[in-house]
Formats: sequence, C-alpha cells, structure tokens
Amino acid sequence: METALSLSTSRMLSLSSFQLQHARIPSRFLALSSSFRRNFTSRPKVPPQLHNLPTLKIFASITAKPSSELRKEQSRSSEPDDKLRALRELFSRPNISIDAYIIPSQDAHQSEFIAECYSRRAYISGFTGSAGTAVVTKDKAALWTDGRYFLQAEKQLTSSWILMRAGNLGVPTTSEWLNGVLSPGCRIGIDPFLFSSNAAEELKEVISQKNHELVYLYDSNLVDEIWKESRPKPPNRHIRVHDMKYAGVDVASKLSSLRSELTYAGSSAIIISMLDEIAWLLNLRGGDVPHSPVMYAYLIVEIDGAKLFINDAKINLEVMNYLKNAGIELRPYESILSEIESLAEKGACLWLDTSSVSAAIVSTYKSACDKYCGNAGEVNRKKRTFPNVPVSQSRGPTAVFKSSPISMAKAVKNEAELQGMRNSHLRDAAALAQFWAWLEKEISNNVVLTEVDVADKLLEFRSKQDGFVDTSFDTISGSGANGAIIHYKPELNSCGNVDAEKLFLLDSGAQYIDGTTDITRTVHFGEPSSWQKECFTRVLQGHIALDQAVFPENYPGFVLDAFARSSLWKIGLDYRHGTGHGVGAALNVHEGPQSISFRFGNMTPLLKGMVVSNEPGYYEDHAFGIRIENLLYIKEVNTPYRFGGTEYLGFEKLTFVPIQTKLVDLSLISSTELDWLNDYHKQVWEKVSPLLDGSALQWLWNNTRPLVKP
Amino acid sequence: METALSLSTSRMLSLSSFQLQHARIPSRFLALSSSFRRNFTSRPKVPPQLHNLPTLKIFASITAKPSSELRKEQSRSSEPDDKLRALRELFSRPNISIDAYIIPSQDAHQSEFIAECYSRRAYISGFTGSAGTAVVTKDKAALWTDGRYFLQAEKQLTSSWILMRAGNLGVPTTSEWLNGVLSPGCRIGIDPFLFSSNAAEELKEVISQKNHELVYLYDSNLVDEIWKESRPKPPNRHIRVHDMKYAGVDVASKLSSLRSELTYAGSSAIIISMLDEIAWLLNLRGGDVPHSPVMYAYLIVEIDGAKLFINDAKINLEVMNYLKNAGIELRPYESILSEIESLAEKGACLWLDTSSVSAAIVSTYKSACDKYCGNAGEVNRKKRTFPNVPVSQSRGPTAVFKSSPISMAKAVKNEAELQGMRNSHLRDAAALAQFWAWLEKEISNNVVLTEVDVADKLLEFRSKQDGFVDTSFDTISGSGANGAIIHYKPELNSCGNVDAEKLFLLDSGAQYIDGTTDITRTVHFGEPSSWQKECFTRVLQGHIALDQAVFPENYPGFVLDAFARSSLWKIGLDYRHGTGHGVGAALNVHEGPQSISFRFGNMTPLLKGMVVSNEPGYYEDHAFGIRIENLLYIKEVNTPYRFGGTEYLGFEKLTFVPIQTKLVDLSLISSTELDWLNDYHKQVWEKVSPLLDGSALQWLWNNTRPLVKP
Repeated sequence: METALSLSTSRMLSLSSFQLQHARIPSRFLALSSSFRRNFTSRPKVPPQLHNLPTLKIFASITAKPSSELRKEQSRSSEPDDKLRALRELFSRPNISIDAYIIPSQDAHQSEFIAECYSRRAYISGFTGSAGTAVVTKDKAALWTDGRYFLQAEKQLTSSWILMRAGNLGVPTTSEWLNGVLSPGCRIGIDPFLFSSNAAEELKEVISQKNHELVYLYDSNLVDEIWKESRPKPPNRHIRVHDMKYAGVDVASKLSSLRSELTYAGSSAIIISMLDEIAWLLNLRGGDVPHSPVMYAYLIVEIDGAKLFINDAKINLEVMNYLKNAGIELRPYESILSEIESLAEKGACLWLDTSSVSAAIVSTYKSACDKYCGNAGEVNRKKRTFPNVPVSQSRGPTAVFKSSPISMAKAVKNEAELQGMRNSHLRDAAALAQFWAWLEKEISNNVVLTEVDVADKLLEFRSKQDGFVDTSFDTISGSGANGAIIHYKPELNSCGNVDAEKLFLLDSGAQYIDGTTDITRTVHFGEPSSWQKECFTRVLQGHIALDQAVFPENYPGFVLDAFARSSLWKIGLDYRHGTGHGVGAALNVHEGPQSISFRFGNMTPLLKGMVVSNEPGYYEDHAFGIRIENLLYIKEVNTPYRFGGTEYLGFEKLTFVPIQTKLVDLSLISSTELDWLNDYHKQVWEKVSPLLDGSALQWLWNNTRPLVKP
Repeated sequence: METALSLSTSRMLSLSSFQLQHARIPSRFLALSSSFRRNFTSRPKVPPQLHNLPTLKIFASITAKPSSELRKEQSRSSEPDDKLRALRELFSRPNISIDAYIIPSQDAHQSEFIAECYSRRAYISGFTGSAGTAVVTKDKAALWTDGRYFLQAEKQLTSSWILMRAGNLGVPTTSEWLNGVLSPGCRIGIDPFLFSSNAAEELKEVISQKNHELVYLYDSNLVDEIWKESRPKPPNRHIRVHDMKYAGVDVASKLSSLRSELTYAGSSAIIISMLDEIAWLLNLRGGDVPHSPVMYAYLIVEIDGAKLFINDAKINLEVMNYLKNAGIELRPYESILSEIESLAEKGACLWLDTSSVSAAIVSTYKSACDKYCGNAGEVNRKKRTFPNVPVSQSRGPTAVFKSSPISMAKAVKNEAELQGMRNSHLRDAAALAQFWAWLEKEISNNVVLTEVDVADKLLEFRSKQDGFVDTSFDTISGSGANGAIIHYKPELNSCGNVDAEKLFLLDSGAQYIDGTTDITRTVHFGEPSSWQKECFTRVLQGHIALDQAVFPENYPGFVLDAFARSSLWKIGLDYRHGTGHGVGAALNVHEGPQSISFRFGNMTPLLKGMVVSNEPGYYEDHAFGIRIENLLYIKEVNTPYRFGGTEYLGFEKLTFVPIQTKLVDLSLISSTELDWLNDYHKQVWEKVSPLLDGSALQWLWNNTRPLVKP
C-alpha cells in the first residue's frame, strides 16, 4: 500500500518523513473471521511450516465493506448545524470558557487507523476522509484537508463549514487562520490527549503571536459531550498472546533490553503510547482498531516494574496470567495521568518521545515535577558527555526527550518474525492467485463487477487462508481513471465497474497471525496501448532497480529512492509518493522509522532485518494508474569484497505474485531486467504452486512462463 | 580534481558539505606565463571562437614545481623549538596575556589556496600538509591533521610537537584537548581574522565548559611577529579586468541584482570576504594566490555605493578607471574594520554570511552596534512573515545572517561563461592529447620518468595553449600504489617513477583566461590485470550512470551520488570521497554551493547552468588508484513529458579526452554503456582533432576508435 501525500518538492523539507508516511485514516472497526480449520492433509506439497496453525476465535463477523463506507452513513445521523450549535454552547461553560476549539483526526495514540468512537472530526464535520482538522470558533467553522479530499469534502460539508484547501496558494494553516479571525488574547481549547506534545508546543508558539492562550481541556472531549448516546462504545475486544514462534523473542528479554536502554539514557521509566509499540513489546495482539492488531492501552516500563493501562474487560484469564508472569501490573486506562503524577512525586526521570506522547501526559509530568520538586521537569536536550548520568540529578527529576527506542527495535525483525512474514506471504499469494484466476474468468465471461465487488471477493479468498485476521488497510481497487487516484477507496454506491478495456490497479493487504502483507499489481484484461506498456515497463524498471540494489550498511533509505524513479525521469515522468515504507510483522502495515523516499530528512539507516515496500508507480490523471509493489526484507549480501570493512546490504523478496507480462514493452527492457522478471516468475511458481490446485494453479502456470526477447 | 576527505559514514552528518569540499591547501604562489601569441593562421580547422585571444602580460615566470615542495624547503629555515619559545614569550605581554594560542591553516578569506605569507601554521609547526591546526600552550604544542597526512606530519614535526591524528578513536578535538590540559579559567588567544564567525562561536561555546575565555587578538598575528623579516611579503600582483565576452554580465547588472536581494532581505549592505565572490561580482581577476585567479580584498556593497578594500598597488590605471565607472570606491585593505564601525554608526543593517565572514568583522559590527545604538546587533534568525521589512527596525541596526547570495549566482553560469568553459576545455584537451602521445612514446622507449617529470611536461604542453594562466591545483600524478593516495602530491626528491607495468592516475587542471579545467584519467602502459580491468570498468559504469542521469529540477546533488557508486557496491567496493564538486568559470576549481556527494546535509538544488565534476574512483591501498573525471554542465533535457510541470535536467560534457579502452572489461559492460563510450570518443575526435597535428593527432585517432563486443 502506498502511503504518501501529494506534495510539491518545495514542501518536502518542512515535514518530517514519518509525519507524511502516516496518512491517518479514521475508519470503522472491521472485524473479519478467520477459518483456520482448513484441512491441509490432502495437500502433500504444502511446506511444513504452514501446517498446524492455531484456531483463533476472537474475531467473529466478516464484513467486506470498506470502513469509510460504513462510517459515512453513520456520520450523517444528525444535522451538522445542530452539532455546531451544541458545541458552541459548551464554549461558555465556566470551567471551559474558550473562544475556539480544534478537533484533529487523531486518537490519543497517534494511530493510523482509529476506533470509530474516536472519529470526532468526522462526527462534528460530516467529512469522513482520512486526513483533516476541524476548527470551530463562536461564529465560524472551518475544515482543513489536502488535495486528495477536496471533492469529497465539498460534497460532505454543509454550508456551515468553510473548506480550507491545505497546500493551495494563500490558504492559511489552522493557527494562522485563528490568528486572523480571533481578536487578540483569546482562549483556544484542545483535548490535550489528541495532540502530541510537539504538535501542541508548535501550536502554542504560533498563536502566542496574537496573545492567544492554548487551553488544555483535560476533563472531557467536547465533541464526545455532544455526541452523547449515539457515540459508539470504545472497543473492548479480547487481546491475545502473540505466540513465541511468531514473536521470536520473549517479553522478559525485550523488557530487559529496554531497561538497559533506559539506564544508559539516565532515565528510570518510559511512557509508551504508540499502540503497535505496546503490542510488539509485550507480544500481545488486540482487535480495537481496523487493520492493525492492536489494543488501546498505555504502558509504563520502570527499571523494576511495568504497568499496563488498559480496560481489563479486554483481558482474559490466559492473558492475565501471561502478564502476571511477565511482571506487568494492570491499571485502568483512565488512570494514566495520576500514575504520571505519582512517578513525578517519587522522582522518576521519564523518557518521553514528544513526537508521539500526548501533550496531556508531558504537561502533567512537568506540572507535577514543579509541584513536588520545584523543578519544571525541564530537560537538557544537548549531548551529554556521560550519557548514563542524568543531567542535574540533584535537582529532582528531569525528563529524557528522545525518540522511542522501541521503534527501531521493532523495525529490525528477528528470524522468527521474518519466517512468519515469509509464510504468510505465500498463503497471501495463494489467495491472490485464486482471486486473479477468478477475476480473469469473470471478465472474460463479460460479468459486470464493481470495484467493490472485486475487493469483496479478494477478501473472501484471503479470509479462507490459515491464520487470516483482517485486511491490513482498505483495499484500493481502481479501474481506469480511478487507478490514478493514489488513495482511491471505492464506495458502494459510487464506485466504477472493472473495465476490461482499461488498466486495473489493485493495492491490498492482510493481517495474518504470523505476518502482514501489502501488495499492488496492475493488469489489463484486454489490449493495453503502447503508451500504457511504456509506462508500465518504466515503473517495472524502477521496481527492479530498487529490488537489485546493493548498498553499504547505515545508508538512509532516501539514497535508494532515485533508483526507482530513474527510468521514468528519462522521459520526464515521476510519481508523487515515496517508494517504500516499513511494515510490521503481524502489526501495522505502515511503520517507521525507516523509509525509501524523497523525504531527505529521514536519516534512519537501513538495517539488516528491516521490511520495506518497493512500490514505484505512474499516474496519469483522468486516465490510468500503475503501481507495482512487493514487500522486501533487508539482508546481508555476500559481496566478494567489503570495502571499508562494512557490510553490504540488499533485498530479498517476500511477495510472490506474478507481474503481468502482457504489459512489458520488450523493446525497452534490458536483458538483465528480463532475466530478473523470468527468475522472479520461476520463484513464484516454485513457492506458490504447492498451495494451489485447479484453475488457480493453471492461472499461476500461465502467468509465470518466461518472456523471451524476439 | 577530487576533493573529499577520508570519512567514516558516521561522521558524515556532523560536518557541513561545504566545509568538507574545501580541503585547505596552503601553497606557495605559483606564477605561470602564458603565451597567447601563438599563431593560428596555419590552422584553418580551429573553431573561430578560439582565435584572437588577448595578450596577457602580467604573469611572468614559469615554475613547474608543485607549490608544497617549494614551501617545504622554506619552512625549515629556523628550528621549530626557537619558534615555539619566541611565540610563548609573546603570551605574557601585558596587552596579550594568554595561556594558549590556536594557529589554523586559513587565511582571512577562507580560501582553499592561500598566499605563502599567510601559511602561519606551516611556518610555526614545520608541517606543510594542506589541512591542520596547531595549538600552542605554555608547555605543550600539538598539531591536528587527518589521515591523509599522518605520515608526512610524523616526518615533519619535531619532538616538541604532539601529533594529533584527527578522526582516530579517542583523539580529542582541539577544544576538547585545551579543556583537558589547561586549568579552568584560562585565556585562549586567536587571530579573529582567521576564524569564521561560526567557527569562533563554536570554539567559544566548547571552551566555556571549563570557563576558558576566547581572546580575540586584533592587533597582530603572533606568528607573524616571530616570523619577522623572513616572512614573505603579501602578494601584490596587478589585477585585470575579466573581459565581458567571458563574463557575460556586466558589473552594473550584477550589482543591481545584488542590491535587489539586499532590499528584499531588509539589509542595507553586505560584506563580501570570499575572494572568488569578489572576483566574480566585479569581473576582475588577480594573481595573489596559486591556482585561483583572485586577489586579496574585501568588498562592501551598499544600496547606494560600493567599496573595495585592497592594496592599491595592485590596481593599474585601466582597472582604476574601470572601478570608477562601476561606482566602486577604493579603500586600504587594512581599513575594513573601521569601515564596519562607520556602517554600524550610521545604522546600516548588514548582511553577514557567518560561515565565511571572519569573527573579527562580525564581532566588530556587534560591538559597534552596542556602542552606537545600544543594540547588540542581534538578529532574528527565524522566518519573517514579511521578508522585506527588517525585524525591530526601530531599535537600531540589525544584521541579516544568511548565506551569501553571490555563491548561488556565481554557481549558475551564463551562456558566455559556458562558452568560455567549452572553448578552454577543447584547448586543454589538445594539450592533454599532446601530453599523452608524448608520454606513451617515452614509456615505450623505456625512458625513466618520475611522477614530477610527467607533471612538469604536462604543464609545458598546457602553458603553450592560448589563454593559459596557471594550473588550477597541484597536479596529482601517481603511479601504482601512489595512485591510491587520493590527495597524492609527488615531491621532487621522494616521488616514484611512472611504471610501465602499473596503473597511472593523473588528475590535473588549468586556469585559462576563459575557463577552468579539471580532469582525471587512469591508464595502463602495459597489460592490466583482469582485476584492474574489472575495477576500472565498474568506475566507468558509475561515471556513465551519472553522466546519463536525468532528474527533476530542484533536486539536491546527493540524490545522484549513489548512481555513480552502484556498480562498485554490487561487489562490495566503494570510494571515500564525493562524486562531484562545483567548478568556477575562470575561477576556483572548487566552488560551492552544490555538490554530488554522500554529504546529505547539502540541500542546494542542482540548477541549469551549474558546472560539476563527475569523478567516481576506486582505490586499493598499496596497489593502485582509479579515477575517471570529466566536468559537466547542467542543462535542460527536452524530455517528451514534463510530469508535475517541472523541468527535467541532465548533463552535457565539457571534457573531451579519450578514456583508455584497454582497461574496459567488455564482459561486464552493457551495450548501452558501450554505445556511450563509443559516442563519447566520436565526439572527442570531432571536437579535438582540429586542434592537433602530427603524433598527437595520430594518438587521438588511435584512442577514439570504437570498441566492439566480441
């Protein structure tokens, strides 16, 4: 799945790579059953590691509707004007007393996919796109979104709302707009849980130019107050233990490594609020949000203990015992701030990643430090000569403001995680082969299928695979011009049909119990034009160039980005998104910190064991879209030499699904590139055919035959 | 010429790209005559633009000795111990009163090549390498240099000196060392003209950890005081007007553009201290330093006037009138600080590039602002909403601290400058063809030639070309293992012979009246090994990949760097220097701000009209070195499409000298790469053969024949 926003080059530098990778898609929870009881006994060719997957019963119902579709219906339940009126009434309450309120898309954990009960921006504005910020003053209401969503927002917003087309010339930011429309010295309210500490500080600085005050409303979210009974309940799915055979490293070892990092950094505890970091660290998986197997929680790890802040209705007896054995105490989700206060009181020096931890937590810690120790919890952000001794230890607690150490540890997969990724990708490939065989047959029989029908059918095939849990994001199923919309999501009543005479782009992925997939293929069911073939071939050349790259360890990913664009650049073509993002192992389909992109600020080195996508594309507005995406993992390459004593790294493919050779222009492709394609298809056949039979097996055979230059 | 220092990847980010590009080579002034009166009338095939070059008489003598060789003899004229004793005696003078003195390599203008009278670090330490810093305390003396110079420094330093091998594990920086050896609260002296403002500020901050004070000794340089009569006189070569047919844009236009920039930035004057910026802006050329046609001066441009601070002995009547017509007043070089004071007094808001302007100037301005306006000249470094209104104008003068606008203007060549570069490169190519024809013949006749002999002969051929002025850097002439020393400089008494059975690397360049050249070729006179051929071919593949790159405008150069390494990386090879540096038009052979390198901090976009080198290499310690270098200019490529409405850029070659095909491994090279090589040689023949006759013409013919795959 491709993740980037549409960006002009000039904006590249002002946004962090990680911010951009994470298009936040607040989506309704999508629960998908898995049928693990499929009998493999009649399939002697199945590799042994695919047998004996456990039965997973916690996910009950299948729905194939894209999450945004469901939420759209729901969000129109009352008139926006009433909502705005109700919201503004709250402004004047004595304990609130604000002049404006900002409603962002985020939940309290900076999640990409969020539970419906946290989709406050969609509820208040009626706009259901994945990215946007609503700002309501006493007499105005405005919604910011980016170019992907201008049309959708125009349709969904009522006349009470001003649409702010972010990125267009002369369109102010939210804070600039507030500085413009409010008279100086106003009070601007936010829910401090929904802003990272960094984001709140930045906001505070800009609005201070007009002497506005940023007011943290800790006690309640104002949108929730007007949402009332119709607000969905917070999700409470049971969590499960992620088996050691998939996790590879036990909780005790992970906690021990983390505690060493804490000690080295001179901190005594770390607050973890990113949901995938908690899931990874504790080897737990949840079902609170669509597409990501995580659960809403906070985790505090101290040198001598750990506390998980979670609604205990999610914890069954097995997990209860598991946590007890791991030395992890349970606390109510809502008690996080009081625990932060206690930590400050006992002089704990907290490690806080202010890019993810909320303003509520950071601010509470600072205030508590002031209160208990006469010390503002202020920090020394500079390098220390002795990194393991906290600065000004004698003056009371001080925070360590650094990136979370879990992010990098999670990104570098161990052998068990890689094996789970390999295995789940083969099962996913089998489902895709069945799907493509089915689709080609339907199209050839002139069956009319919508883009949503096709996505539904794909889900059906995938859900029959062992260990299937969920889709890993809403399927992007785009025929013809829809394929050119990079984040296209077909909607039930408005989507197009899959046209046999047009290019069809399908970007989809799944969560399995042992791994996460993300794959894009572009096909033509009839006769592609020579121009479409040229574009496809140049995208493929970029894909191959990146796949085949060898590079010294410790290089940041952006160094490789141009390899994937070079063939397109030769004729003046390009694509407006990054080439690769990180992928979790049975976790989030988008994860940091590495990326392969033109976002040159991301200096994260590419390391052995990381998983990245390889997804160059080309999009011609109102005509077609092309993207070819495989997942790769980074491995050491046994180069004959090792100049500089360094390791040289390269990629190994995880994805094994045919690339449509009909779309390859043989006059453009070099013999080396042709060898790559033929070798890939040979591997696809060898690895995936044992999982198939019947028409899908025949389809795989037909689509893995070597191409020969005339 | 290749410019990078030997660097580990982990250090890449802590140094600015521009700092690293500029290996400072304090070299004796090398004056070279030019013989412009060569008669072209018997050569009807010469392109018309090469006729009628003016006679230039200001450069009188030829010497072929590398500059470092000459200075080495000179710098040993008195014993280092006596010098240290004399220097330390000055420490206790009442108006000085310091505990340590730092002697850097630089002159007051951050020049790469400096006049001998400013080679204070070489004089005091006896170490003549291009990079190094000497620090003398009351009882210790230490010299820092990098890996290129450890052996040389060991030989040249006496036992009074401690050699600090910078970059080695555990070796402190100069300031860390001072913090370690001095008791707290000491006074550390510097000549504030020899440190950029940024460098001095950084130093000040580190030594303040031990309460040391950084003392600016404005009145005299302490090394000059002990150098006394033996110190060479400051250079006083006449300056000349750089003809409009080479400059392309007149001074009035350049000044007018600069003044628009000043107004836009809200400043009323700019201090220019980089010598090549002054030469470029005023269309003047000088002869004060070796290899660069510049003159020691400062320039202040105000909205309504301009002043050149220069020793007026350098100005003849023609230049005097020229400057008068351009509205430029003359001031003594030494009066720069008093002018800065006057500007502060009259409330001027100065544009200061603190990465190049000296601590002496910046500090004088700040003090004067304090004195006259009660304002510390402090600045607002943040973005301004209205860039053309100075911040806090009412409080008196404020500085604008920004990069010099001249740097970028100079980097983007106009058509006349490009034409001069093209023409001078063809004459340079003719000299090189004559040289290679001569050398191959000598070697085949078993004539014993040293690396210096060869460099001398090359200079002889070049000096016969029209418009020749100087070498553009000391020739790197390395046979066998010496080729692996990236900044090798053969010395008269210690250099090797050119071995017919080894690879020979020759990196050289020239200053012509109309352009600047820089070229590297690697050849074998006998039978190269298959390993040497493989390495050469992979370097060539990198060279071709960069040469052929097409990329959207506004991309920084580092995006292209990996193209040049990719083929080497495939087998685990690499080179420890950047791939491309900017080159001046009849100016410095190394200029910023762009580069093509792994120094990812340099975000300067590559723009149409910039000139860059393309010089990948491979170096095998104690065995051989390979580098293939052409100069290129950036041009718009007429791609059939222009995705994103952007221009797509590519390169055009300036250098036309054969690449030795004997070294190409045909089994490795693709047909596209072979086509590139054959097409290049076709162009070389077409462009350079009209300038040759006799054996050189025959050599060119032999060496431009197409290669055919077996």
